[in-house]
Amino acid sequence: MNFDQERLPREKVFRDPIHGQIIVDNQIILDLINTPEFQRLRRVKQLGTSSLIFHGAEHSRFGHCLGVYEVARRICNHFQRNYPSQKKGDGLWDDHERPVALCAALLHDLGHGPYSHTFEHIFHTDHEAITRQIITSPSTNINRILKRVSPEFPREVASVIDHSYHNQQVVQMISSQVDADRMDYLQRDAYYTGTNYGKYDLDRVLRVMRPVKNGIAFEISGMHAVEDYIISRLQMYLQIYFHPVSRAMEVILDHLLMRAKYLYQHPNEYRPQFTPKMLMPFFNNHFTLQDYLALDDGVLTTYFQHWQHDSDDILADLSSRFLNRRPLKSVQYDDSTAKYLDKLRELITRAGFDDHYYTATNSSYKLPYDTYNPQDSKPQTQIELIQPDGELVELSAVSTLVAAVSGKEAGDQRFFFPKEMLRQENDIDIFQPVYDEFQSYLQNGHVVDPR
Amino acid sequence: MNFDQERLPREKVFRDPIHGQIIVDNQIILDLINTPEFQRLRRVKQLGTSSLIFHGAEHSRFGHCLGVYEVARRICNHFQRNYPSQKKGDGLWDDHERPVALCAALLHDLGHGPYSHTFEHIFHTDHEAITRQIITSPSTNINRILKRVSPEFPREVASVIDHSYHNQQVVQMISSQVDADRMDYLQRDAYYTGTNYGKYDLDRVLRVMRPVKNGIAFEISGMHAVEDYIISRLQMYLQIYFHPVSRAMEVILDHLLMRAKYLYQHPNEYRPQFTPKMLMPFFNNHFTLQDYLALDDGVLTTYFQHWQHDSDDILADLSSRFLNRRPLKSVQYDDSTAKYLDKLRELITRAGFDDHYYTATNSSYKLPYDTYNPQDSKPQTQIELIQPDGELVELSAVSTLVAAVSGKEAGDQRFFFPKEMLRQENDIDIFQPVYDEFQSYLQNGHVVDPR
Amino acid sequence: MNFDQERLPREKVFRDPIHGQIIVDNQIILDLINTPEFQRLRRVKQLGTSSLIFHGAEHSRFGHCLGVYEVARRICNHFQRNYPSQKKGDGLWDDHERPVALCAALLHDLGHGPYSHTFEHIFHTDHEAITRQIITSPSTNINRILKRVSPEFPREVASVIDHSYHNQQVVQMISSQVDADRMDYLQRDAYYTGTNYGKYDLDRVLRVMRPVKNGIAFEISGMHAVEDYIISRLQMYLQIYFHPVSRAMEVILDHLLMRAKYLYQHPNEYRPQFTPKMLMPFFNNHFTLQDYLALDDGVLTTYFQHWQHDSDDILADLSSRFLNRRPLKSVQYDDSTAKYLDKLRELITRAGFDDHYYTATNSSYKLPYDTYNPQDSKPQTQIELIQPDGELVELSAVSTLVAAVSGKEAGDQRFFFPKEMLRQENDIDIFQPVYDEFQSYLQNGHVVDPR
Amino acid sequence: MNFDQERLPREKVFRDPIHGQIIVDNQIILDLINTPEFQRLRRVKQLGTSSLIFHGAEHSRFGHCLGVYEVARRICNHFQRNYPSQKKGDGLWDDHERPVALCAALLHDLGHGPYSHTFEHIFHTDHEAITRQIITSPSTNINRILKRVSPEFPREVASVIDHSYHNQQVVQMISSQVDADRMDYLQRDAYYTGTNYGKYDLDRVLRVMRPVKNGIAFEISGMHAVEDYIISRLQMYLQIYFHPVSRAMEVILDHLLMRAKYLYQHPNEYRPQFTPKMLMPFFNNHFTLQDYLALDDGVLTTYFQHWQHDSDDILADLSSRFLNRRPLKSVQYDDSTAKYLDKLRELITRAGFDDHYYTATNSSYKLPYDTYNPQDSKPQTQIELIQPDGELVELSAVSTLVAAVSGKEAGDQRFFFPKEMLRQENDIDIFQPVYDEFQSYLQNGHVVDPR
Repeated sequence: MNFDQERLPREKVFRDPIHGQIIVDNQIILDLINTPEFQRLRRVKQLGTSSLIFHGAEHSRFGHCLGVYEVARRICNHFQRNYPSQKKGDGLWDDHERPVALCAALLHDLGHGPYSHTFEHIFHTDHEAITRQIITSPSTNINRILKRVSPEFPREVASVIDHSYHNQQVVQMISSQVDADRMDYLQRDAYYTGTNYGKYDLDRVLRVMRPVKNGIAFEISGMHAVEDYIISRLQMYLQIYFHPVSRAMEVILDHLLMRAKYLYQHPNEYRPQFTPKMLMPFFNNHFTLQDYLALDDGVLTTYFQHWQHDSDDILADLSSRFLNRRPLKSVQYDDSTAKYLDKLRELITRAGFDDHYYTATNSSYKLPYDTYNPQDSKPQTQIELIQPDGELVELSAVSTLVAAVSGKEAGDQRFFFPKEMLRQENDIDIFQPVYDEFQSYLQNGHVVDPR
Repeated sequence: MNFDQERLPREKVFRDPIHGQIIVDNQIILDLINTPEFQRLRRVKQLGTSSLIFHGAEHSRFGHCLGVYEVARRICNHFQRNYPSQKKGDGLWDDHERPVALCAALLHDLGHGPYSHTFEHIFHTDHEAITRQIITSPSTNINRILKRVSPEFPREVASVIDHSYHNQQVVQMISSQVDADRMDYLQRDAYYTGTNYGKYDLDRVLRVMRPVKNGIAFEISGMHAVEDYIISRLQMYLQIYFHPVSRAMEVILDHLLMRAKYLYQHPNEYRPQFTPKMLMPFFNNHFTLQDYLALDDGVLTTYFQHWQHDSDDILADLSSRFLNRRPLKSVQYDDSTAKYLDKLRELITRAGFDDHYYTATNSSYKLPYDTYNPQDSKPQTQIELIQPDGELVELSAVSTLVAAVSGKEAGDQRFFFPKEMLRQENDIDIFQPVYDEFQSYLQNGHVVDPR
Repeated sequence: MNFDQERLPREKVFRDPIHGQIIVDNQIILDLINTPEFQRLRRVKQLGTSSLIFHGAEHSRFGHCLGVYEVARRICNHFQRNYPSQKKGDGLWDDHERPVALCAALLHDLGHGPYSHTFEHIFHTDHEAITRQIITSPSTNINRILKRVSPEFPREVASVIDHSYHNQQVVQMISSQVDADRMDYLQRDAYYTGTNYGKYDLDRVLRVMRPVKNGIAFEISGMHAVEDYIISRLQMYLQIYFHPVSRAMEVILDHLLMRAKYLYQHPNEYRPQFTPKMLMPFFNNHFTLQDYLALDDGVLTTYFQHWQHDSDDILADLSSRFLNRRPLKSVQYDDSTAKYLDKLRELITRAGFDDHYYTATNSSYKLPYDTYNPQDSKPQTQIELIQPDGELVELSAVSTLVAAVSGKEAGDQRFFFPKEMLRQENDIDIFQPVYDEFQSYLQNGHVVDPR
Repeated sequence: MNFDQERLPREKVFRDPIHGQIIVDNQIILDLINTPEFQRLRRVKQLGTSSLIFHGAEHSRFGHCLGVYEVARRICNHFQRNYPSQKKGDGLWDDHERPVALCAALLHDLGHGPYSHTFEHIFHTDHEAITRQIITSPSTNINRILKRVSPEFPREVASVIDHSYHNQQVVQMISSQVDADRMDYLQRDAYYTGTNYGKYDLDRVLRVMRPVKNGIAFEISGMHAVEDYIISRLQMYLQIYFHPVSRAMEVILDHLLMRAKYLYQHPNEYRPQFTPKMLMPFFNNHFTLQDYLALDDGVLTTYFQHWQHDSDDILADLSSRFLNRRPLKSVQYDDSTAKYLDKLRELITRAGFDDHYYTATNSSYKLPYDTYNPQDSKPQTQIELIQPDGELVELSAVSTLVAAVSGKEAGDQRFFFPKEMLRQENDIDIFQPVYDEFQSYLQNGHVVDPR
């Protein structure tokens, strides 16, 4: 293993508001951080449109990736001090796994682009696949550095990310219901949004982690810390990640990119005044890894600035709405009221809006916790607790709190529409009767039977 | 109202680690704080034996009482700015209620003695009744100051504390499922223990509070903040207040006081070397308010120091165990295993311990949340949310999370015993066979069928 | 005053990680925040290149501007509660000044562009003048909204920003040695960088502020809080704002823009492959307010991405160095060693670098505190303390700590050069002798006599 | 070394609000914590009378001692990772010093009694000598446990505390201008008082520490972190430790114990109603180590409660003033105004107070930093910085800020007197003319020439 040979004589430190210090003690890690591919993450916001609602949360994916590395490093240290493997197969921690664990932690989000979720929706990209490509493609600086460890090392790191790596302790450290990734982003997003929901006792959760035969478990004495983590995560989803205004801004972004794609793909209908060079490979459905790595948040907003003055009214209006933060409004609906949505769309059309671009539905649901179910399309690794005698027990079997929320999805489904539809009592507005009819379908933030 | 006449020209400030500043702007409040009755609270720990487990949490009731006052003050300010009553009976906030609200908030815990819970158990005192007595008895400084507002004012303040005050907004501000008392102590105890469990978004909960006809409700948009508060409270109970070692120390304290009471009440059996003057009125079942107000944590531990060298072995040993923090051990049991407790007590007796003083059972259960039930002995005020159209809806009817935990008690019941019973494999200890048999009834921290 | 008429029936709240809540209780303020001019601040980083050193500090000017507003609001509340004017000219606070104070606080940074300092250096813009222009020009949304208060209101707000407003209490609240601007950014930058240097006791400093005849003074009992603020500010300058690597990245940015400007201004020498449309007005020395308001950080980095692949080697290299964070190195020098800089530049040229673009000198000095000196080009408002009898005394006259640092500049001057010059012992590099000679002039981070 | 043999297979953790986790990984350390001598520290407040001013700061010496241990542990880890000794005498860290460093850190404050400073003044005890006695006396549990390491180990630990230990790295880790003791208490006291003054960047200071030949130095790149620490320490002294009201309460305590000592030593003049058993050995100038270890804060306040009702008016009044927090008032004086103090004492006597018990002077000065001066009675270890080439440089030689404050004492001297002397304009009080004359000597909190 050539990793140890690159151990730094003195640790280097990145000051971090969440973890205090992020400690790097190997030249490989330092060199990975200094690649263009990794530095690019500074230009991609961690929370996308959420920063338009929680103005404090403008942090990028760069700090998060360092944070995941740091959490993984602490887990390795804890495992090595308290549960070191004595002989192969004893289910304890083999510290030879440290390099692959640290590199996978650091690099796991490398493939994220600007406003990833929306971008993937419109352009059918897959950030996880791109992450693996960056790691394994010989064209990248990342790959070149990883190969200093060994020729197969890039592939091993990539295999942690797609869960196929042989050691499940490493896989679960990076990706499971309680992994270094989530442990970092919950704390980080809570810090930057200025909310308390995501704060759980990171030190304590790390402390009660324990390597076991097929992965990672938690000492039963730390059950409440794990519960608190589960609930914190749920609260972050409901309060931050699923915030209706954030989703409304995402709808605008989605429709804006959809409109642009349509226009640039229909040259007969549309004479562009301006060519968004870096997006063209994506409009043309033909892009390289380098094209992808050139994108960042600033590139998109720069194009939106141009489009704000475009001859196409919809493109111009949606660009302006996005840049100047003028979200759509929304209401909740359910299976029984979904039938009214067509009527609502019709009214919106009558008020002068293209309902294809000015309305949307969105369901955001989160499973707070679930037990392992092999029938699932993506079966979750369940959380296991270790009892004093070494027996494992699944979390919801002993935690009343987790049992109460287990398997029950939380979230809502919403219908989005222009704020203009909520105008009231304006005698001279010819659309006021349309608005009034529209409003008769809404009550207390829900779609209702209009009577 | 003579309260306003005592308004201070400039606000005074107490620096507080939890609220930053506690602002006093009335001479009455300042004078109440400066009474001996209130200053005594500095010598009574907020968390009793918990500070023996969470060493950071050695704070007294003094700071908590100031904190409850400050939270109440902020609620009044918020109500007055955003929901001022326009005319009697409109269900909004009448700021004439401010004096009674602030004084009740400040004074609500005045009757707490040292290690209140245990002390009440042994000496049949009632801290709430004593609080009202301090407020209404003409012999106290507190009473004298309150009367400056009006002759009936002390009684009004006392009536808030026993819930009989006419304005339910005031009553619920001081005592309900989300009141100034709980809002302060959860944050405060979390701060001092150094845990994150009790941290919830105080600013946000205050912000979404709203006066309504029969009390206080919460805007539905703030539902998640209330949920988070409910869960934080539950976690504090499970993790801090119900901590098994803390309860074990409470058992020792309880048995120690029980032993002392027994001895001092049986002069024929026991010749005391030392007279605990300030406790004698309590041993004699005849104490005055002044006797009660003379007690504090230091008085008790001073007596324990004397008793540590007492001729009565049990009194001496329990005193030493308490002072030097040598807790009993404990295991959980349930209805099906309760039948083994007699056997365990018998083994403990055989190992040389008086089971009356060296064993105990304790059930600690908390209802995370409950709806109003008029059949209950102490029906809880349920939490109501206000919808945009003004309709109220009960919390668990809309919150999946709260519905999941509502009405389900959390906690455990435990059997306490001397640590010595857990000794292992000591060939020369003649009690080792007794210890071994005892241990055969325990597994993973539970009483089990011994096979 | 039409401001009061737009008072909101219920306060609105922005959640902020620094101040907890930012409270808006007037429609004017809300509408100002929602203008495109103000929303643009989301796309301009507060700390420019510092975020490349302190990765946590990626926050924009948007949150800072809200924060300054909030601090000003709290000062107004404090003044109004504790020092309300009774009659004109009594030197106390007249709450009619609130609208102009709040609007000036909110808008004071509106004219900042991307990487302001560097941008101004290259393009001779002036963010303060532009701020006033945005406020007073009839073409902006900001101006339109401010005029709802009164026709002269925009001009009044602008006059606070250029210090010509008649009421010095308002002027000093927004701009003085201890003003709402600095009070916010020190806390904010400390929070986001994750350092403790900038943390001082904001609550306490606010508490001891006091309106006096010609401005704002501080109660002498709060002297230590003011001292702490002075020292915190100094530490932030030395540690964060003057960080050598941050300045090194600024040098690269400066030279990169300088190079681009030169190239685009010399069409005979340079055939651009790409036209940076939004920068062209600036290259052409002819830009409108709209041109300026279109710029943001993302526009610049998007252009740098294009230039990274430019045919001009210097432009391409500097762009890549900036985007991928490859700073210049630097050493300190002083008056006695400045004479060696020409020699160093010569060596750098010999090693193949254009010294015009690859070297720089930079002096960064900060006066920790100074008394008022009418001879100064920009005389500072000195800090005055109020004694119990009402007499004012200048801070450094009573504070030993402040006296010790008063008038003494802190900082350094540095020479920047390519990292390559520090290479060591590479036998096959033909430049190694040049590097060796270069290094003989450096010791312990300083330029020295190369003996 | 038998220390390593007692290494715990799994680390144990104490949750601490300041350091997050205090990690114990050796049975010796655990056993030391569990001794009665160490547990007693829970009953002795860290800040004595300061908690009467900063109500949040009621923490005991127990947590502080754990904290010092934790800081020392982190320093050892850092030294061992980054500066491990390769061969004897290389000036790097030899990890065999860890046991003595950790034990000295943990035990360094063991000899503190209740309100140490005052107690020592009245009873001529010396907490440092008692600490060493507890460590080396064969009668203590502490001694017995330390001897498990080796017979000489107790004496080695004690020699660290009196600075005579051979390895100056260990000595300075525990006691120097930047040591584990100060590093813990500044953070801890800042946390509990709720102030920001004491917050400095602990992680960063630890990070730049470095073992050198004759002790510990700091990397010059960390100079600002050390400066910040120096200033934070100064601010804590001026703001917290020297708070005039805290000193006023100390005066009361001092005079109260002085009075009691006088009375109990003069049985002809005074017939005690009550015998403060645990103080009698001290009144009789003849106490054992066990007598000393029986004292704690609660013992003293229990006696004060008794004395509150004593027949001796002065004893009763001072006891009541202490318990109910009624401080003396104070003013500053200097060499030029010291001459008026006799006059002031005379007026106080005329107003009916015994000036021996109701007045006092107190000087509190702190040297923010000083260089080593062999002429000093207690020469300070100066702070040395390491330059990149390994040369040491003394801090104030390079830090303008530290140079500015170095060698200049900060603090004040005060005259204390009864609050009654400040009464104003009470026509019917016969002492009013005396009060008026008294007040003519005071202005702006200073003694002045009465005209």
